[in-house]
Amino acid sequence: MASILITGGAGFIGANLARRLIEAGHTVTVLDNLYTGRKSELEGLPLTLLERDVREPIPGEYDWIFNLACPASPPHYQREPLFTLTTSIDGLRNVLELAKRTGARVLHASTSEIYGDPLVHPQPEPYWGHVNTLGIRSCYDEGKRVAETMALEYRRTYGVDVRLVRIFNTYGPHMDPKDGRVVSNFILQALRNEPITLYGEGQQTRSFQFVEDLLNGFMTYMEAPKEKLEAFFREKGLDIPVFNMGNPGEFTVRELAEEVLKLLPESTSTMVFRPLPGDDPKRRKPDIAWAKACLGWEPRIPLREGLAKTIPYFRGTL
Amino acid sequence: MASILITGGAGFIGANLARRLIEAGHTVTVLDNLYTGRKSELEGLPLTLLERDVREPIPGEYDWIFNLACPASPPHYQREPLFTLTTSIDGLRNVLELAKRTGARVLHASTSEIYGDPLVHPQPEPYWGHVNTLGIRSCYDEGKRVAETMALEYRRTYGVDVRLVRIFNTYGPHMDPKDGRVVSNFILQALRNEPITLYGEGQQTRSFQFVEDLLNGFMTYMEAPKEKLEAFFREKGLDIPVFNMGNPGEFTVRELAEEVLKLLPESTSTMVFRPLPGDDPKRRKPDIAWAKACLGWEPRIPLREGLAKTIPYFRGTL
Repeated sequence: MASILITGGAGFIGANLARRLIEAGHTVTVLDNLYTGRKSELEGLPLTLLERDVREPIPGEYDWIFNLACPASPPHYQREPLFTLTTSIDGLRNVLELAKRTGARVLHASTSEIYGDPLVHPQPEPYWGHVNTLGIRSCYDEGKRVAETMALEYRRTYGVDVRLVRIFNTYGPHMDPKDGRVVSNFILQALRNEPITLYGEGQQTRSFQFVEDLLNGFMTYMEAPKEKLEAFFREKGLDIPVFNMGNPGEFTVRELAEEVLKLLPESTSTMVFRPLPGDDPKRRKPDIAWAKACLGWEPRIPLREGLAKTIPYFRGTL
Repeated sequence: MASILITGGAGFIGANLARRLIEAGHTVTVLDNLYTGRKSELEGLPLTLLERDVREPIPGEYDWIFNLACPASPPHYQREPLFTLTTSIDGLRNVLELAKRTGARVLHASTSEIYGDPLVHPQPEPYWGHVNTLGIRSCYDEGKRVAETMALEYRRTYGVDVRLVRIFNTYGPHMDPKDGRVVSNFILQALRNEPITLYGEGQQTRSFQFVEDLLNGFMTYMEAPKEKLEAFFREKGLDIPVFNMGNPGEFTVRELAEEVLKLLPESTSTMVFRPLPGDDPKRRKPDIAWAKACLGWEPRIPLREGLAKTIPYFRGTL
């Protein structure tokens, strides 16, 4: 039984994590300013909700802190770029200051976006990435990159037990239906009997991690003794633990649409094809060898099963 | 006659800039916490010195601000990585807040280090760079990268007239003799009749920009009308002006040593060759086509002339 803080706990991953931790008997506090998080996703859960901005110093004392606070989808993080940037930087700094003061263990949610438009496939953790400092995604990408550096230096300077995880594309219940992600779009279109919109031929590939797999990774990672992680990463020449967590299985967007339609045979939706937009997100695929070797973790839930567990949530939102 | 603030004005470039601005009749205020800056370099100059940390909000009102505050040599910036990182981030943020409040024009000193260990030679401004988020240089490199992003977003969100310059290797009077740079090392070794230490065969190349050339660039850049810059960069697809400033001429380290010895014929120093260290800095060379096209700027002072103007300064420090 631990006392656990989740910043951004009203967001997609946070709301799932809160449930998981409560089921395991932990005492959960959620800190969220509800900028993109939704109070509705925490309804009825026995937790404390602090409606605060993570950019303000954080009171209290916790055993573990999961730092998930930051808008994460392009329409959200591009709405107020300076909000996004300062949430990444000042939010993590406040979390690390709290951990420094209290000795809390921290999991910081980094992202596959720190690899940018990668020149290496799949991306292993030592890959440095390929990122534009002056583009429309920079407020997120560079904010998240420098947050990793800040975590490294708090660990090196003050011994804060902060652990980095680079999260790849994840889906599941409690996703924001308005997020504009391909999984939520397709499920909602199928449920509403609307056309399922694919771009180009729908042959671009994506990897999809079901949120339960990610949470299994979080728990194994946070339960790992500090010394074990340090030994593993010392050998890699790194002063901070960092793992990719994502599903390395690749599906075409068309295969995803087909899976959704198979799971919703009553839907009258059909696929329609639109021209490929210029800024179609680049393909990213995690190399998860490190997490497998050190934590024994890998995703186990097939796409069909994950989609089947996700559809009821979206049906409930209609 | 303008009122001008130089943050980091007691550093190498700042002390030269202060002289230049005073000679041109401007009213100069230097803000420096003297962490690496040296008060001695401003002695006798008619300026106001604010001994403050740029990470604290900045009072006052200025027409122009040059944001030069940040440790810039590896031994300095690695001493307290969190100091370096927060100086980059919070320092620029305070400068931009001041500019937002007062309408000041800002030149922000970025660096060739944002290109990291480049995969493209020479580096043009659109090159995204190749940087490690979790290495010993990250506190500087990533701090400087995200500072560019912050400048971009203050410009886009609030219309702050901030201009970026990526400064390449620069030398001249007022360099810190303890900085460990190759130019200052060689001059000091020659003046002291000590062996001039080269690593490997001394065949690695560097580019050396004399500080007066850089300051000519600064002035031309800051005098350029906002509209002119915006028109130039709109065409490049950039929402903020950014120029490389450095000398594209390449010299081997051995050639540099030979030049120094030619200028100090009375020196009894000879060259000695030591094994190449593992972390020998990577070669970087600016592509300055943009600054040439838009500002008509390029370096004009040959290495020999610049060294001849630098040697008397170091002689005076002995």
